[in-house]
Amino acid sequence: MTTTSFAFRVGVSFGDCDPAGIVFYPRYFAWFDATYHAFLTHLDLPHAKLCARLGCLGSGVIESGADFRSPATNGDMLDVVLSVDEWHEHSFRLLYDVRLGDRPVVHGFEVRGLFMRRGDRLEAGPVAPLKALLEERGTDG
Amino acid sequence: MTTTSFAFRVGVSFGDCDPAGIVFYPRYFAWFDATYHAFLTHLDLPHAKLCARLGCLGSGVIESGADFRSPATNGDMLDVVLSVDEWHEHSFRLLYDVRLGDRPVVHGFEVRGLFMRRGDRLEAGPVAPLKALLEERGTDG
Amino acid sequence: MTTTSFAFRVGVSFGDCDPAGIVFYPRYFAWFDATYHAFLTHLDLPHAKLCARLGCLGSGVIESGADFRSPATNGDMLDVVLSVDEWHEHSFRLLYDVRLGDRPVVHGFEVRGLFMRRGDRLEAGPVAPLKALLEERGTDG
Amino acid sequence: MTTTSFAFRVGVSFGDCDPAGIVFYPRYFAWFDATYHAFLTHLDLPHAKLCARLGCLGSGVIESGADFRSPATNGDMLDVVLSVDEWHEHSFRLLYDVRLGDRPVVHGFEVRGLFMRRGDRLEAGPVAPLKALLEERGTDG
Repeated sequence: MTTTSFAFRVGVSFGDCDPAGIVFYPRYFAWFDATYHAFLTHLDLPHAKLCARLGCLGSGVIESGADFRSPATNGDMLDVVLSVDEWHEHSFRLLYDVRLGDRPVVHGFEVRGLFMRRGDRLEAGPVAPLKALLEERGTDG
Repeated sequence: MTTTSFAFRVGVSFGDCDPAGIVFYPRYFAWFDATYHAFLTHLDLPHAKLCARLGCLGSGVIESGADFRSPATNGDMLDVVLSVDEWHEHSFRLLYDVRLGDRPVVHGFEVRGLFMRRGDRLEAGPVAPLKALLEERGTDG
Repeated sequence: MTTTSFAFRVGVSFGDCDPAGIVFYPRYFAWFDATYHAFLTHLDLPHAKLCARLGCLGSGVIESGADFRSPATNGDMLDVVLSVDEWHEHSFRLLYDVRLGDRPVVHGFEVRGLFMRRGDRLEAGPVAPLKALLEERGTDG
Repeated sequence: MTTTSFAFRVGVSFGDCDPAGIVFYPRYFAWFDATYHAFLTHLDLPHAKLCARLGCLGSGVIESGADFRSPATNGDMLDVVLSVDEWHEHSFRLLYDVRLGDRPVVHGFEVRGLFMRRGDRLEAGPVAPLKALLEERGTDG
Protein backbone atom coordinates (compact mmCIF):
# COMPACT_ATOMS: atom_id res chain seq x y z
CA MET A 1 0.00 0.00 0.00
CA THR A 2 1.30 3.41 -0.87
CA THR A 3 0.53 6.47 1.16
CA THR A 4 -1.50 9.28 -0.29
CA SER A 5 0.56 12.42 -0.27
CA PHE A 6 0.45 15.83 -1.86
CA ALA A 7 3.03 18.64 -1.97
CA PHE A 8 2.18 22.33 -1.78
CA ARG A 9 4.55 25.28 -1.94
CA VAL A 10 4.18 28.32 0.30
CA GLY A 11 6.18 31.53 -0.05
CA VAL A 12 6.65 33.23 3.31
CA SER A 13 6.06 36.97 3.15
CA PHE A 14 6.93 39.89 5.44
CA GLY A 15 3.31 40.12 6.58
CA ASP A 16 3.34 36.49 7.74
CA CYS A 17 6.07 37.36 10.23
CA ASP A 18 5.86 38.82 13.72
CA PRO A 19 8.00 41.41 15.52
CA ALA A 20 10.65 38.71 16.11
CA GLY A 21 10.96 38.55 12.30
CA ILE A 22 9.77 34.93 12.05
CA VAL A 23 6.49 33.39 10.92
CA PHE A 24 3.65 34.06 13.38
CA TYR A 25 2.77 30.48 14.29
CA PRO A 26 -0.99 30.48 13.54
CA ARG A 27 -0.04 31.07 9.90
CA TYR A 28 1.24 27.48 9.72
CA PHE A 29 -2.24 26.20 10.58
CA ALA A 30 -3.66 28.40 7.79
CA TRP A 31 -1.12 26.79 5.47
CA PHE A 32 -2.10 23.29 6.63
CA ASP A 33 -5.69 24.17 5.76
CA ALA A 34 -4.66 25.72 2.42
CA THR A 35 -2.71 22.55 1.58
CA TYR A 36 -5.75 20.39 2.36
CA HIS A 37 -7.95 22.54 0.12
CA ALA A 38 -5.34 22.52 -2.68
CA PHE A 39 -5.25 18.72 -2.33
CA LEU A 40 -9.04 18.53 -2.78
CA THR A 41 -8.88 20.88 -5.77
CA HIS A 42 -6.04 18.80 -7.25
CA LEU A 43 -8.35 15.74 -7.05
CA ASP A 44 -11.02 17.77 -8.86
CA LEU A 45 -13.02 17.70 -5.63
CA PRO A 46 -12.85 21.29 -4.40
CA HIS A 47 -14.56 21.68 -1.04
CA ALA A 48 -17.96 22.86 -2.37
CA LYS A 49 -18.10 19.94 -4.84
CA LEU A 50 -16.98 17.46 -2.19
CA CYS A 51 -19.76 18.64 0.12
CA ALA A 52 -22.35 18.42 -2.66
CA ARG A 53 -21.19 14.85 -3.49
CA LEU A 54 -21.17 13.67 0.11
CA GLY A 55 -24.15 15.62 1.40
CA CYS A 56 -22.14 17.28 4.12
CA LEU A 57 -21.84 20.88 5.25
CA GLY A 58 -18.08 20.83 5.57
CA SER A 59 -15.03 18.75 6.32
CA GLY A 60 -13.94 20.68 9.35
CA VAL A 61 -11.18 20.27 11.87
CA ILE A 62 -11.80 18.41 15.16
CA GLU A 63 -8.26 18.56 16.47
CA SER A 64 -4.97 20.01 15.29
CA GLY A 65 -1.46 20.41 16.57
CA ALA A 66 2.11 21.16 15.54
CA ASP A 67 5.74 21.00 16.62
CA PHE A 68 7.73 24.02 15.59
CA ARG A 69 11.24 22.76 14.80
CA SER A 70 12.96 25.78 13.27
CA PRO A 71 11.91 29.29 12.24
CA ALA A 72 11.15 30.56 8.75
CA THR A 73 11.19 34.14 7.53
CA ASN A 74 10.34 36.55 4.69
CA GLY A 75 11.32 35.14 1.30
CA ASP A 76 11.59 31.49 2.40
CA MET A 77 9.94 29.02 0.03
CA LEU A 78 8.45 26.23 2.13
CA ASP A 79 7.38 22.79 0.96
CA VAL A 80 4.34 21.46 2.77
CA VAL A 81 3.71 17.73 2.30
CA LEU A 82 0.28 16.42 3.28
CA SER A 83 -0.12 12.68 3.97
CA VAL A 84 -3.36 10.89 4.68
CA ASP A 85 -2.40 9.10 7.87
CA GLU A 86 -5.38 7.26 9.38
CA TRP A 87 -9.03 6.58 8.69
CA HIS A 88 -11.43 6.14 11.59
CA GLU A 89 -15.20 5.68 11.47
CA HIS A 90 -16.09 9.34 11.97
CA SER A 91 -12.79 11.11 11.34
CA PHE A 92 -9.55 10.97 9.39
CA ARG A 93 -6.09 12.21 10.22
CA LEU A 94 -3.74 14.20 8.00
CA LEU A 95 -0.03 14.83 8.62
CA TYR A 96 1.79 17.94 7.46
CA ASP A 97 5.54 18.06 7.03
CA VAL A 98 6.85 21.56 6.36
CA ARG A 99 10.44 21.89 5.17
CA LEU A 100 12.77 24.58 3.88
CA GLY A 101 14.89 22.49 1.52
CA ASP A 102 16.12 19.68 3.77
CA ARG A 103 15.57 21.51 7.04
CA PRO A 104 12.48 20.49 9.03
CA VAL A 105 10.43 23.57 9.92
CA VAL A 106 7.11 22.27 11.28
CA HIS A 107 5.47 18.87 11.78
CA GLY A 108 1.76 19.01 12.31
CA PHE A 109 -1.54 17.20 11.98
CA GLU A 110 -5.25 17.71 11.57
CA VAL A 111 -8.10 15.38 12.50
CA ARG A 112 -11.07 16.17 10.28
CA GLY A 113 -14.66 15.00 10.08
CA LEU A 114 -17.55 15.32 7.64
CA PHE A 115 -20.22 17.42 9.31
CA MET A 116 -23.85 16.68 8.55
CA ARG A 117 -27.00 18.36 9.83
CA ARG A 118 -28.97 16.11 12.16
CA GLY A 119 -32.10 17.86 13.39
CA ASP A 120 -30.85 21.17 14.67
CA ARG A 121 -27.27 20.19 15.40
CA LEU A 122 -24.22 19.18 13.46
CA GLU A 123 -22.65 15.80 13.84
CA ALA A 124 -19.67 14.01 12.36
CA GLY A 125 -20.92 11.46 9.82
CA PRO A 126 -19.13 8.35 8.50
CA VAL A 127 -16.01 9.10 6.45
CA ALA A 128 -16.00 5.87 4.41
CA PRO A 129 -17.59 7.62 1.37
CA LEU A 130 -14.72 10.12 1.31
CA LYS A 131 -12.17 7.32 1.56
CA ALA A 132 -13.86 5.55 -1.37
CA LEU A 133 -13.87 8.75 -3.40
CA LEU A 134 -10.15 9.35 -2.82
CA GLU A 135 -9.34 5.74 -3.73
CA GLU A 136 -11.42 6.04 -6.89
CA ARG A 137 -9.33 9.08 -7.85
CA GLY A 138 -6.25 6.88 -7.57
CA THR A 139 -4.65 8.64 -4.69
CA ASP A 140 -4.68 5.83 -2.20
CA GLY A 141 -3.35 2.31 -2.63
CA MET B 1 -29.36 66.32 11.79
CA THR B 2 -26.99 64.29 13.87
CA THR B 3 -24.48 61.93 12.38
CA THR B 4 -24.71 58.22 13.05
CA SER B 5 -21.57 57.04 14.76
CA PHE B 6 -20.40 54.04 16.70
CA ALA B 7 -17.24 53.42 18.72
CA PHE B 8 -15.39 50.12 18.89
CA ARG B 9 -12.30 49.26 20.88
CA VAL B 10 -9.46 47.15 19.45
CA GLY B 11 -6.52 45.83 21.45
CA VAL B 12 -3.41 45.51 19.30
CA SER B 13 -1.57 42.26 19.87
CA PHE B 14 1.93 41.02 19.05
CA GLY B 15 0.57 38.88 16.22
CA ASP B 16 -1.01 41.92 14.54
CA CYS B 17 2.45 43.42 14.14
CA ASP B 18 5.06 42.88 11.45
CA PRO B 19 8.86 42.57 11.66
CA ALA B 20 9.08 46.38 12.00
CA GLY B 21 7.14 45.91 15.26
CA ILE B 22 4.10 47.91 14.12
CA VAL B 23 0.63 46.85 12.99
CA PHE B 24 0.67 45.11 9.59
CA TYR B 25 -1.53 47.52 7.67
CA PRO B 26 -4.15 45.06 6.27
CA ARG B 27 -5.18 44.45 9.89
CA TYR B 28 -6.69 47.95 9.98
CA PHE B 29 -9.06 46.99 7.17
CA ALA B 30 -10.03 43.85 9.13
CA TRP B 31 -10.76 46.17 12.09
CA PHE B 32 -12.86 48.50 9.90
CA ASP B 33 -14.89 45.45 8.87
CA ALA B 34 -15.12 44.22 12.47
CA THR B 35 -16.34 47.67 13.56
CA TYR B 36 -19.03 47.63 10.85
CA HIS B 37 -20.21 44.17 11.98
CA ALA B 38 -20.17 45.21 15.66
CA PHE B 39 -22.25 48.26 14.65
CA LEU B 40 -24.83 46.00 12.96
CA THR B 41 -24.90 43.70 15.99
CA HIS B 42 -25.29 46.73 18.30
CA LEU B 43 -28.40 47.69 16.26
CA ASP B 44 -29.69 44.15 16.75
CA LEU B 45 -29.20 43.62 13.02
CA PRO B 46 -26.26 41.25 12.83
CA HIS B 47 -25.26 40.60 9.23
CA ALA B 48 -27.24 37.36 8.75
CA LYS B 49 -30.41 39.00 10.14
CA LEU B 50 -29.85 42.13 8.05
CA CYS B 51 -29.54 40.00 4.91
CA ALA B 52 -32.69 38.04 5.77
CA ARG B 53 -34.62 41.29 6.36
CA LEU B 54 -33.41 42.96 3.16
CA GLY B 55 -33.29 39.90 0.91
CA CYS B 56 -29.65 40.41 0.08
CA LEU B 57 -26.69 38.05 0.06
CA GLY B 58 -24.34 40.45 1.77
CA SER B 59 -23.42 44.06 2.35
CA GLY B 60 -19.99 43.87 0.80
CA VAL B 61 -17.24 46.36 0.13
CA ILE B 62 -17.02 48.09 -3.27
CA GLU B 63 -14.14 50.40 -2.45
CA SER B 64 -11.94 51.02 0.57
CA GLY B 65 -8.94 53.14 1.48
CA ALA B 66 -6.94 54.50 4.37
CA ASP B 67 -4.31 57.06 5.38
CA PHE B 68 -1.88 55.74 7.92
CA ARG B 69 -0.99 58.69 10.17
CA SER B 70 1.04 57.10 12.94
CA PRO B 71 2.03 53.57 13.95
CA ALA B 72 0.49 51.40 16.66
CA THR B 73 2.06 48.45 18.42
CA ASN B 74 1.51 45.50 20.81
CA GLY B 75 -0.58 46.50 23.80
CA ASP B 76 -2.05 49.68 22.32
CA MET B 77 -5.80 50.08 22.88
CA LEU B 78 -7.25 51.74 19.79
CA ASP B 79 -10.60 53.48 19.50
CA VAL B 80 -12.24 53.03 16.11
CA VAL B 81 -15.11 55.40 15.40
CA LEU B 82 -17.41 54.54 12.50
CA SER B 83 -19.57 57.31 10.98
CA VAL B 84 -22.17 56.86 8.30
CA ASP B 85 -21.01 59.48 5.83
CA GLU B 86 -23.09 59.36 2.63
CA TRP B 87 -26.02 57.51 1.13
CA HIS B 88 -26.17 56.98 -2.63
CA GLU B 89 -28.72 55.01 -4.61
CA HIS B 90 -26.76 51.78 -4.74
CA SER B 91 -24.07 52.30 -2.14
CA PHE B 92 -23.28 53.98 1.16
CA ARG B 93 -20.05 55.33 2.56
CA LEU B 94 -18.62 54.78 6.04
CA LEU B 95 -15.72 56.65 7.63
CA TYR B 96 -13.38 55.13 10.20
CA ASP B 97 -11.33 57.24 12.55
CA VAL B 98 -8.78 55.20 14.51
CA ARG B 99 -7.11 56.89 17.47
CA LEU B 100 -4.79 56.00 20.32
CA GLY B 101 -6.06 58.40 22.97
CA ASP B 102 -5.84 61.78 21.21
CA ARG B 103 -3.32 60.71 18.60
CA PRO B 104 -4.72 60.00 15.11
CA VAL B 105 -3.57 56.58 13.91
CA VAL B 106 -5.58 55.82 10.74
CA HIS B 107 -8.35 57.55 8.79
CA GLY B 108 -10.16 55.27 6.39
CA PHE B 109 -13.39 54.61 4.55
CA GLU B 110 -15.47 51.87 3.02
CA VAL B 111 -18.09 52.12 0.26
CA ARG B 112 -20.54 49.24 0.68
CA GLY B 113 -23.47 47.92 -1.33
CA LEU B 114 -26.27 45.42 -0.79
CA PHE B 115 -25.69 42.55 -3.14
CA MET B 116 -28.69 40.70 -4.61
CA ARG B 117 -28.82 37.78 -6.98
CA ARG B 118 -30.13 38.79 -10.43
CA GLY B 119 -30.24 35.79 -12.73
CA ASP B 120 -26.79 34.26 -12.44
CA ARG B 121 -24.90 37.35 -11.33
CA LEU B 122 -24.77 39.58 -8.30
CA GLU B 123 -25.71 43.20 -8.48
CA ALA B 124 -25.81 46.10 -6.04
CA GLY B 125 -29.45 46.79 -5.14
CA PRO B 126 -30.99 49.98 -3.73
CA VAL B 127 -29.77 50.88 -0.23
CA ALA B 128 -32.83 52.96 0.79
CA PRO B 129 -34.32 50.03 2.79
CA LEU B 130 -31.13 49.85 4.87
CA LYS B 131 -31.20 53.62 5.46
CA ALA B 132 -34.82 53.33 6.62
CA LEU B 133 -33.96 50.46 8.92
CA LEU B 134 -31.10 52.38 10.53
CA GLU B 135 -33.30 55.45 11.00
CA GLU B 136 -36.01 53.30 12.56
CA ARG B 137 -33.44 52.03 15.05
CA GLY B 138 -32.83 55.63 16.05
CA THR B 139 -29.26 55.84 14.87
CA ASP B 140 -29.69 58.55 12.26
CA GLY B 141 -31.24 61.97 12.64
CA MET C 1 -0.93 26.38 45.74
CA THR C 2 -3.27 28.25 43.45
CA THR C 3 -2.97 28.11 39.72
CA THR C 4 -2.08 31.19 37.75
CA SER C 5 -4.88 32.04 35.40
CA PHE C 6 -5.98 34.98 33.33
CA ALA C 7 -9.21 35.64 31.42
CA PHE C 8 -9.40 37.42 28.09
CA ARG C 9 -12.49 38.25 26.07
CA VAL C 10 -12.60 37.86 22.27
CA GLY C 11 -15.44 39.08 20.06
CA VAL C 12 -15.84 36.89 16.99
CA SER C 13 -16.34 38.91 13.83
CA PHE C 14 -17.60 38.07 10.33
CA GLY C 15 -14.06 38.20 8.96
CA ASP C 16 -12.89 35.55 11.44
CA CYS C 17 -15.33 33.09 9.87
CA ASP C 18 -14.97 30.88 6.83
CA PRO C 19 -17.45 29.97 4.07
CA ALA C 20 -19.10 27.49 6.47
CA GLY C 21 -19.95 30.54 8.61
CA ILE C 22 -17.88 29.43 11.60
CA VAL C 23 -14.51 30.58 12.95
CA PHE C 24 -11.61 29.60 10.68
CA TYR C 25 -9.66 27.43 13.10
CA PRO C 26 -6.20 29.10 12.86
CA ARG C 27 -7.85 32.20 14.38
CA TYR C 28 -8.09 30.33 17.70
CA PHE C 29 -4.32 29.98 17.79
CA ALA C 30 -4.02 33.73 17.11
CA TRP C 31 -6.35 34.25 20.09
CA PHE C 32 -4.27 31.94 22.30
CA ASP C 33 -1.25 34.07 21.41
CA ALA C 34 -3.20 37.31 21.98
CA THR C 35 -4.30 36.02 25.39
CA TYR C 36 -0.69 35.22 26.32
CA HIS C 37 0.43 38.70 25.30
CA ALA C 38 -2.47 40.34 27.17
CA PHE C 39 -1.45 38.28 30.22
CA LEU C 40 2.11 39.62 30.00
CA THR C 41 0.83 43.17 29.58
CA HIS C 42 -1.51 42.69 32.55
CA LEU C 43 1.56 41.75 34.63
CA ASP C 44 3.23 44.95 33.43
CA LEU C 45 5.65 42.75 31.53
CA PRO C 46 4.69 43.31 27.89
CA HIS C 47 6.75 41.11 25.58
CA ALA C 48 9.42 43.71 24.72
CA LYS C 49 9.97 44.52 28.41
CA LEU C 50 10.02 40.82 29.33
CA CYS C 51 12.69 40.18 26.71
CA ALA C 52 14.76 43.15 27.92
CA ARG C 53 14.51 41.91 31.52
CA LEU C 54 15.41 38.31 30.69
CA GLY C 55 17.90 38.95 27.91
CA CYS C 56 15.96 36.86 25.44
CA LEU C 57 14.87 37.50 21.88
CA GLY C 58 11.38 36.13 22.34
CA SER C 59 9.20 33.70 24.22
CA GLY C 60 8.11 31.72 21.21
CA VAL C 61 6.01 28.64 20.70
CA ILE C 62 7.65 25.20 20.51
CA GLU C 63 4.47 23.16 20.27
CA SER C 64 0.76 23.93 20.16
CA GLY C 65 -2.48 22.06 19.72
CA ALA C 66 -6.22 22.28 20.20
CA ASP C 67 -9.46 20.28 20.37
CA PHE C 68 -12.35 22.02 18.67
CA ARG C 69 -15.44 21.14 20.72
CA SER C 70 -18.15 23.30 19.21
CA PRO C 71 -18.31 26.07 16.60
CA ALA C 72 -18.48 29.82 17.18
CA THR C 73 -19.70 32.47 14.79
CA ASN C 74 -20.04 36.22 14.07
CA GLY C 75 -21.10 38.16 17.17
CA ASP C 76 -20.18 35.49 19.73
CA MET C 77 -18.31 36.82 22.75
CA LEU C 78 -15.79 34.18 23.79
CA ASP C 79 -14.02 33.88 27.12
CA VAL C 80 -10.47 32.58 26.84
CA VAL C 81 -8.92 31.45 30.12
CA LEU C 82 -5.16 30.97 30.19
CA SER C 83 -3.64 28.78 32.92
CA VAL C 84 0.04 28.23 33.55
CA ASP C 85 0.15 24.45 33.59
CA GLU C 86 3.73 23.18 33.90
CA TRP C 87 7.26 24.47 34.25
CA HIS C 88 10.12 22.47 32.74
CA GLU C 89 13.78 23.43 32.59
CA HIS C 90 13.69 24.93 29.10
CA SER C 91 9.99 25.34 28.46
CA PHE C 92 6.64 26.03 30.09
CA ARG C 93 3.16 24.93 29.20
CA LEU C 94 0.02 27.07 29.02
CA LEU C 95 -3.56 25.82 28.74
CA TYR C 96 -6.33 27.73 27.00
CA ASP C 97 -9.98 27.09 27.72
CA VAL C 98 -12.31 28.90 25.31
CA ARG C 99 -16.00 29.06 26.23
CA LEU C 100 -19.16 30.74 24.99
CA GLY C 101 -20.97 31.19 28.28
CA ASP C 102 -21.01 27.66 29.71
CA ARG C 103 -20.47 25.89 26.41
CA PRO C 104 -16.92 24.60 25.77
CA VAL C 105 -15.68 25.83 22.39
CA VAL C 106 -11.96 25.00 22.24
CA HIS C 107 -9.38 23.49 24.60
CA GLY C 108 -5.80 24.12 23.59
CA PHE C 109 -2.25 24.49 24.79
CA GLU C 110 1.06 26.09 23.97
CA VAL C 111 4.55 25.02 25.01
CA ARG C 112 6.79 28.08 24.99
CA GLY C 113 10.48 28.70 25.51
CA LEU C 114 12.73 31.71 26.02
CA PHE C 115 14.95 32.00 22.99
CA MET C 116 18.47 33.33 23.40
CA ARG C 117 21.18 33.90 20.84
CA ARG C 118 24.07 31.43 21.22
CA GLY C 119 26.74 32.06 18.59
CA ASP C 120 24.82 32.18 15.33
CA ARG C 121 21.83 30.11 16.38
CA LEU C 122 18.91 30.44 18.73
CA GLU C 123 18.43 28.12 21.66
CA ALA C 124 15.87 27.71 24.39
CA GLY C 125 17.35 29.03 27.64
CA PRO C 126 16.29 28.23 31.22
CA VAL C 127 12.80 29.45 32.14
CA ALA C 128 13.35 29.68 35.90
CA PRO C 129 13.89 33.48 35.72
CA LEU C 130 10.48 33.88 34.09
CA LYS C 131 8.87 31.67 36.75
CA ALA C 132 10.47 33.82 39.47
CA LEU C 133 9.27 37.00 37.80
CA LEU C 134 5.69 35.74 37.58
CA GLU C 135 5.76 34.64 41.24
CA GLU C 136 7.14 38.03 42.25
CA ARG C 137 4.18 39.66 40.49
CA GLY C 138 1.90 37.62 42.69
CA THR C 139 0.34 35.53 40.00
CA ASP C 140 1.55 32.14 41.12
CA GLY C 141 1.19 30.58 44.50
CA MET D 1 10.38 54.96 -20.99
CA THR D 2 9.05 51.57 -20.00
CA THR D 3 7.12 51.01 -16.83
CA THR D 4 8.50 48.82 -14.11
CA SER D 5 6.13 45.97 -13.50
CA PHE D 6 6.17 42.62 -11.74
CA ALA D 7 3.67 39.76 -11.78
CA PHE D 8 2.86 37.60 -8.75
CA ARG D 9 0.47 34.68 -8.57
CA VAL D 10 -1.86 34.11 -5.60
CA GLY D 11 -3.95 30.99 -5.04
CA VAL D 12 -7.15 31.81 -3.17
CA SER D 13 -7.90 29.31 -0.42
CA PHE D 14 -11.01 28.48 1.62
CA GLY D 15 -9.56 30.25 4.65
CA ASP D 16 -9.17 33.52 2.71
CA CYS D 17 -12.94 33.57 2.19
CA ASP D 18 -15.71 34.89 4.43
CA PRO D 19 -19.18 33.51 5.20
CA ALA D 20 -20.40 34.90 1.84
CA GLY D 21 -17.90 32.47 0.23
CA ILE D 22 -15.76 35.20 -1.33
CA VAL D 23 -12.37 36.64 -0.42
CA PHE D 24 -12.47 38.69 2.80
CA TYR D 25 -11.35 42.04 1.40
CA PRO D 26 -8.42 42.81 3.78
CA ARG D 27 -6.69 39.75 2.26
CA TYR D 28 -6.21 41.71 -0.98
CA PHE D 29 -4.15 44.29 0.92
CA ALA D 30 -2.05 41.46 2.38
CA TRP D 31 -1.52 40.24 -1.20
CA PHE D 32 -0.53 43.74 -2.38
CA ASP D 33 2.07 43.76 0.38
CA ALA D 34 3.20 40.21 -0.46
CA THR D 35 3.58 41.22 -4.13
CA TYR D 36 5.71 44.23 -3.13
CA HIS D 37 7.95 42.02 -0.98
CA ALA D 38 8.23 39.38 -3.74
CA PHE D 39 9.19 42.20 -6.12
CA LEU D 40 11.99 43.30 -3.76
CA THR D 41 13.18 39.71 -3.37
CA HIS D 42 13.08 39.25 -7.17
CA LEU D 43 15.43 42.27 -7.45
CA ASP D 44 17.74 40.60 -4.91
CA LEU D 45 16.81 43.38 -2.49
CA PRO D 46 14.65 41.63 0.09
CA HIS D 47 13.30 44.09 2.65
CA ALA D 48 16.00 43.54 5.30
CA LYS D 49 18.77 44.01 2.72
CA LEU D 50 17.05 47.06 1.23
CA CYS D 51 16.84 48.63 4.69
CA ALA D 52 20.50 47.87 5.41
CA ARG D 53 21.52 49.42 2.06
CA LEU D 54 19.42 52.55 2.48
CA GLY D 55 19.78 53.01 6.23
CA CYS D 56 16.06 52.93 6.81
CA LEU D 57 13.91 51.04 9.29
CA GLY D 58 11.27 50.05 6.75
CA SER D 59 9.50 50.98 3.56
CA GLY D 60 6.05 51.23 5.05
CA VAL D 61 2.67 52.20 3.72
CA ILE D 62 1.43 55.81 4.07
CA GLU D 63 -1.81 55.37 2.14
CA SER D 64 -3.58 52.52 0.41
CA GLY D 65 -6.86 51.90 -1.35
CA ALA D 66 -8.68 49.54 -3.69
CA ASP D 67 -11.72 49.14 -5.94
CA PHE D 68 -13.27 45.71 -5.73
CA ARG D 69 -14.57 44.91 -9.23
CA SER D 70 -15.62 41.27 -8.98
CA PRO D 71 -15.40 38.53 -6.36
CA ALA D 72 -12.91 35.66 -6.17
CA THR D 73 -13.30 32.38 -4.32
CA ASN D 74 -11.58 29.18 -3.12
CA GLY D 75 -9.39 27.67 -5.85
CA ASP D 76 -9.10 30.81 -8.01
CA MET D 77 -5.57 31.55 -9.24
CA LEU D 78 -5.15 35.32 -9.28
CA ASP D 79 -2.52 37.30 -11.15
CA VAL D 80 -1.38 40.41 -9.29
CA VAL D 81 0.59 42.89 -11.39
CA LEU D 82 2.54 45.57 -9.54
CA SER D 83 3.56 48.73 -11.44
CA VAL D 84 5.73 51.50 -10.08
CA ASP D 85 3.51 54.49 -10.84
CA GLU D 86 5.01 57.70 -9.44
CA TRP D 87 8.05 58.92 -7.56
CA HIS D 88 7.72 61.89 -5.21
CA GLU D 89 10.37 63.35 -2.95
CA HIS D 90 9.39 61.44 0.17
CA SER D 91 7.12 58.73 -1.19
CA PHE D 92 6.43 56.50 -4.18
CA ARG D 93 3.22 55.05 -5.52
CA LEU D 94 2.59 51.47 -6.62
CA LEU D 95 -0.43 50.19 -8.56
CA TYR D 96 -1.82 46.68 -8.22
CA ASP D 97 -3.98 45.09 -10.89
CA VAL D 98 -5.52 41.80 -9.76
CA ARG D 99 -7.09 39.61 -12.44
CA LEU D 100 -8.60 36.15 -12.77
CA GLY D 101 -7.64 35.39 -16.34
CA ASP D 102 -9.04 38.36 -18.26
CA ARG D 103 -11.56 39.36 -15.62
CA PRO D 104 -10.61 42.36 -13.45
CA VAL D 105 -10.93 41.50 -9.77
CA VAL D 106 -9.32 44.38 -7.85
CA HIS D 107 -7.48 47.59 -8.72
CA GLY D 108 -5.53 49.07 -5.88
CA PHE D 109 -2.57 51.20 -4.88
CA GLU D 110 -0.07 51.81 -2.12
CA VAL D 111 1.89 54.97 -1.32
CA ARG D 112 5.07 53.99 0.51
CA GLY D 113 7.89 55.87 2.16
CA LEU D 114 11.33 55.03 3.56
CA PHE D 115 11.19 55.53 7.30
CA MET D 116 14.29 56.75 9.11
CA ARG D 117 14.85 57.44 12.76
CA ARG D 118 15.25 61.18 13.48
CA GLY D 119 15.81 61.78 17.17
CA ASP D 120 13.03 59.88 18.86
CA ARG D 121 10.57 59.83 16.01
CA LEU D 122 10.30 58.26 12.59
CA GLU D 123 10.14 60.34 9.46
CA ALA D 124 9.86 59.65 5.75
CA GLY D 125 13.26 60.22 4.15
CA PRO D 126 14.07 60.93 0.48
CA VAL D 127 13.23 58.06 -1.87
CA ALA D 128 15.72 58.99 -4.64
CA PRO D 129 18.25 56.36 -3.42
CA LEU D 130 15.62 53.65 -3.83
CA LYS D 131 14.73 54.90 -7.32
CA ALA D 132 18.43 54.81 -8.26
CA LEU D 133 18.78 51.30 -6.88
CA LEU D 134 15.78 50.04 -8.88
CA GLU D 135 17.11 51.68 -12.06
CA GLU D 136 20.53 50.12 -11.48
CA ARG D 137 18.81 46.72 -11.29
CA GLY D 138 17.41 47.38 -14.77
CA THR D 139 13.79 47.51 -13.76
CA ASP D 140 13.03 51.06 -14.74
CA GLY D 141 13.66 52.80 -18.08
